[in-house]
Amino acid sequence: MRVAVMYAPGDVRVEDRPEPTILAPTDAIIRLPATCICGSDLWPYWGVEAVDGPRPMGHEYAGIVEDIGSAVTTIRPGQFVVGSFFASDNTCEICRAGYQTSCLNREPGAPDGAQAERMRVPLADGTLVATPDIPADDLIPSLLAASDVLGTGWFGAVAAQAGPGKTVAVVGDGAVGLLGVLAAKQLGAERIIAMSRHQPRQQLALEYGGTHIVEERGDAGVERVKDLTNGLGAHSVIEAVGTQESMMQAIRATRPGGHVGYVGVNHNVSLPGEELFFSHVHLHGGPAPVRRFLPKLIDLIWNRRIDPGKVFDLELPLDQAAAGYQAMDTRQAIKVLLRPEPVLTRGTGKA
Amino acid sequence: MRVAVMYAPGDVRVEDRPEPTILAPTDAIIRLPATCICGSDLWPYWGVEAVDGPRPMGHEYAGIVEDIGSAVTTIRPGQFVVGSFFASDNTCEICRAGYQTSCLNREPGAPDGAQAERMRVPLADGTLVATPDIPADDLIPSLLAASDVLGTGWFGAVAAQAGPGKTVAVVGDGAVGLLGVLAAKQLGAERIIAMSRHQPRQQLALEYGGTHIVEERGDAGVERVKDLTNGLGAHSVIEAVGTQESMMQAIRATRPGGHVGYVGVNHNVSLPGEELFFSHVHLHGGPAPVRRFLPKLIDLIWNRRIDPGKVFDLELPLDQAAAGYQAMDTRQAIKVLLRPEPVLTRGTGKA
Repeated sequence: MRVAVMYAPGDVRVEDRPEPTILAPTDAIIRLPATCICGSDLWPYWGVEAVDGPRPMGHEYAGIVEDIGSAVTTIRPGQFVVGSFFASDNTCEICRAGYQTSCLNREPGAPDGAQAERMRVPLADGTLVATPDIPADDLIPSLLAASDVLGTGWFGAVAAQAGPGKTVAVVGDGAVGLLGVLAAKQLGAERIIAMSRHQPRQQLALEYGGTHIVEERGDAGVERVKDLTNGLGAHSVIEAVGTQESMMQAIRATRPGGHVGYVGVNHNVSLPGEELFFSHVHLHGGPAPVRRFLPKLIDLIWNRRIDPGKVFDLELPLDQAAAGYQAMDTRQAIKVLLRPEPVLTRGTGKA
Repeated sequence: MRVAVMYAPGDVRVEDRPEPTILAPTDAIIRLPATCICGSDLWPYWGVEAVDGPRPMGHEYAGIVEDIGSAVTTIRPGQFVVGSFFASDNTCEICRAGYQTSCLNREPGAPDGAQAERMRVPLADGTLVATPDIPADDLIPSLLAASDVLGTGWFGAVAAQAGPGKTVAVVGDGAVGLLGVLAAKQLGAERIIAMSRHQPRQQLALEYGGTHIVEERGDAGVERVKDLTNGLGAHSVIEAVGTQESMMQAIRATRPGGHVGYVGVNHNVSLPGEELFFSHVHLHGGPAPVRRFLPKLIDLIWNRRIDPGKVFDLELPLDQAAAGYQAMDTRQAIKVLLRPEPVLTRGTGKA
């Protein structure tokens, strides 16, 4: 089958690799009608994260179960399922507290990549959530978004305690930031300030429930948020980038006693203790425990209450994954959907 | 009147200074039957915080109102009051959210020091809380403790979300850490791990409700906390030191999804974003909004439900403040109570 593999920063190739098979009795194999590129895939693409040899890419997935291991009891072949980037048992004390991405038995959710035709998912019972039925085709991008960017933006909004009466600011206008806007709206936030200087992203932020756009960044962006909040700062700030500048922008844009929900994977970030101490903010975040939110997110998508799939503004065949990375790298696309070619027409004999 | 003044690191002198007077119509003048030295007074004593010229010391206070400005309406001369180290209006949006130490109009609570016979308190109505009556002498140390170390330990426990069913670890065995133990107990924590290697402090931690003592520090201390919590870490960790080592010890001793309440004033601390991100902890703290807790703390003390005054294990005349600093610096005393000499016998003519 075809799989996108990163050989080095900037070097993504789609190549033939063996079909996945059940390795552990808790595994499932799923067929992917669509897959996608994540903003976090750009960290190794930029060389900020090391690429040690060819790495099969992708960790967002939704698809049809084709096979299960002998110990899988709740997931069945034929179901359409959504998973997340860490596999979890969903039974340990940490999972039960809602932190499945820190599961005591966690494993990579897509150990052999998910930018592929099929994939193996470990700990299937604890990781996968089935949809009520096989979804209509037009729901698939949204269900795929639930697997990471929606779940991550949602966690950012929950960690920032977005809710009724709150002013929420969102730092970062990638798919996660935009879906943080959507999440804040769904959670009842009164005002939502999207920080973006890119017109198409501003537009989507407004569609998702944003009430204000701030184009400035850094300290100037902080001042604009303060201008909009009687000089106090936002109650809640979602950080969806992960750089030193964006983290400090988020902390400084939050009022004393307010909440920063940070979900941009931190890279080379160092937080000054003194400033944090006197900022009086709450800080919470990390790898989003998407599994906690999947049942609710699937329900909202299934009932067409939300349309997170709109973040996919470029669709390419899987074989053109390299062009997809390039489009996201240059910010020509917010998020790229990759379509594996229909299995039957590729003549792999696997059908 | 006599006031303790720091001239340079290690150089504390008690000298005559003018009696305080009402400067703003919102001021109050209070007479201090007792005053004390704070662990945070040691930062300038050690030279970690700069001492720019002679600095009148002290910021913890409880005493009798002697005079009020023309705009003070709720506080009356003759009342016994407790305040805190920041004066606050207690009416702004930040105060109403419970963060009086970030009040939009905050001022130093003891602008001319509190290791003195009398002091001026700004914003008296918003800052001071009166006791039900003039307290018995033996309650005065506890009421003085409420002004900072108890309020700060309490905030640490609240920020760490100590409560029923929780295992709480406390990093730091100074007065704030010990009163963090007391607070965690009052808030209903199931198990309280005091991290201390000093026998008298261990003893007080156990009296205050500690259930376990861990003598190890740093990574070894973290491992001991994990041993006591099925390898997971504590639900809640109170950080009451403020160094790089103690902050990291607190973060690493907390389970994913758990809460760090940090109240040790951070000095030269830099938090690694990546580790914090993947730790999944909640981080909250800062200068304790003691005013939020004072009514409850005064009630608990008044009804002799708690005895935070036990942290004072050395009592000296105010004129011997230098010896008090030395005793705290060398950890011979947990916390030093200073007694101004009775005003009438000093013959200042102020009576």
